[in-house]
Amino acid sequence: MTTAAPDADVLKLENIRQALVRQEDSIVFNLIERAQYPINADIYHPERCIGLSEYKRHQMMASGGSGCFADYMMYKIEKVHAQARRYAQPTEVPFFGPLPDPVLQPLAAAPNVLAAHSVDINAKILAVYRDEIVPRICATGDDGNHGSAAVQDVQCLQSMATRIYYGLFVAESKFLINREAYSEMIRRGDRQGLWDAITHRAVEDRNVQRVTRKAATFSQEVSQDNATGTKFKIQPAFAGDCFERYMMPLTKEVEVSYLLQRLDAEEPPQDC
Amino acid sequence: MTTAAPDADVLKLENIRQALVRQEDSIVFNLIERAQYPINADIYHPERCIGLSEYKRHQMMASGGSGCFADYMMYKIEKVHAQARRYAQPTEVPFFGPLPDPVLQPLAAAPNVLAAHSVDINAKILAVYRDEIVPRICATGDDGNHGSAAVQDVQCLQSMATRIYYGLFVAESKFLINREAYSEMIRRGDRQGLWDAITHRAVEDRNVQRVTRKAATFSQEVSQDNATGTKFKIQPAFAGDCFERYMMPLTKEVEVSYLLQRLDAEEPPQDC
Repeated sequence: MTTAAPDADVLKLENIRQALVRQEDSIVFNLIERAQYPINADIYHPERCIGLSEYKRHQMMASGGSGCFADYMMYKIEKVHAQARRYAQPTEVPFFGPLPDPVLQPLAAAPNVLAAHSVDINAKILAVYRDEIVPRICATGDDGNHGSAAVQDVQCLQSMATRIYYGLFVAESKFLINREAYSEMIRRGDRQGLWDAITHRAVEDRNVQRVTRKAATFSQEVSQDNATGTKFKIQPAFAGDCFERYMMPLTKEVEVSYLLQRLDAEEPPQDC
Repeated sequence: MTTAAPDADVLKLENIRQALVRQEDSIVFNLIERAQYPINADIYHPERCIGLSEYKRHQMMASGGSGCFADYMMYKIEKVHAQARRYAQPTEVPFFGPLPDPVLQPLAAAPNVLAAHSVDINAKILAVYRDEIVPRICATGDDGNHGSAAVQDVQCLQSMATRIYYGLFVAESKFLINREAYSEMIRRGDRQGLWDAITHRAVEDRNVQRVTRKAATFSQEVSQDNATGTKFKIQPAFAGDCFERYMMPLTKEVEVSYLLQRLDAEEPPQDC
């Protein structure tokens, strides 16, 4: 029997923080890998998915995708990862469906530390990635490497989404630490108040600095003699920007959306 | 219509060298990502693939795998990548089969720059990776993250294999530059002579130094204040070792095997 990481610790803020910091490395690695290929915009356009038959495109649209090649690849990979138990994790939210059952047995029963919720901002993540991030890290044009680019997109989107949905743990943890204050704001439907409560500008600034430094470190051209430090595969400042403008706001959106649903299970409507 | 990178340049040694150097980065990134998880040895043992039904295991064995969970994941991902035209590349050799056809149309007709061959050392790559590399980069034990480890194994193995089979381009390029000397050794079946001819100790030493430096750069813990340079996610010296002891010898094995078959198409046996 396999054993899971002890879930009792999963809501400790220091453990969440360590996981979030490690996930930055994966995101930076993945963006660097995607930057090897130009934008290759055809992979995002259903009408330009040369060779993808009408039948397969129809199937894809039924699953929630646009029918573009990048969606198709994402869905195919998600089906494989579903078999590997990916979506048994409470912070993994699939982009498309339906998905097959895992072929691995469930992990040893772990308490579900999150309240029931329906938070899903995948459409936004997809749009931000394709419309804002890819055009900033990739050269313009098309080199024909549609498969490589679409496969690497899956890596980027999955690592970004994992980081963003970790906000669920952050939100639950903050709620438990300060249940009364949060409950009051939740009952008032005070979205802005919740947003302000979870916002720590100094922490966010440090995150941006750290990610910028990671991109500068991991994306440099390294020769046998030294790390040049002058030529980068992605622009370090944009990596920091990416976290400031997209990753952290989307994470906070997940947190606020979760918090607004946090009391629903505990307080069923009176007239039920 | 999509366009491929111009194949006329693919055999220029400087272009091959640049591609090989860039591939080192991907391999180092992938090893760092795998090192997040312990060895999780169950994924490599057919008898311990908990939950993988006898039916699926049987299917897997029919496809060339042992039936272990890691093989199963590799085969599933290869099926997806086959649809994305991965194995239309002359340096991509699938580990398992059969595979589905691409859903993308073929790239604009590019001349096949390699001679016909049957070089396939995937069994050795699998064995070296699982028996020699994983135990050196991963902690002992099992954290239950079987899906994540197996999925990351696919990334590691694919990036390693791409680098190793790029030896096919290296070999063809060297053959064309010095056709007479190579042809003589090939006709004599002089495996050692070919091995010596493609070996450039000084170049290999530089490769090892460069990969070691890459691992030291990319695997360091980076804080918001600075790159610490003192704590590494994988040991830099082992990354260099990995290239010296496994990656470069396997690449040269591909080169020699290819060269030994290089004249077959040009010189059919006399008694045919």
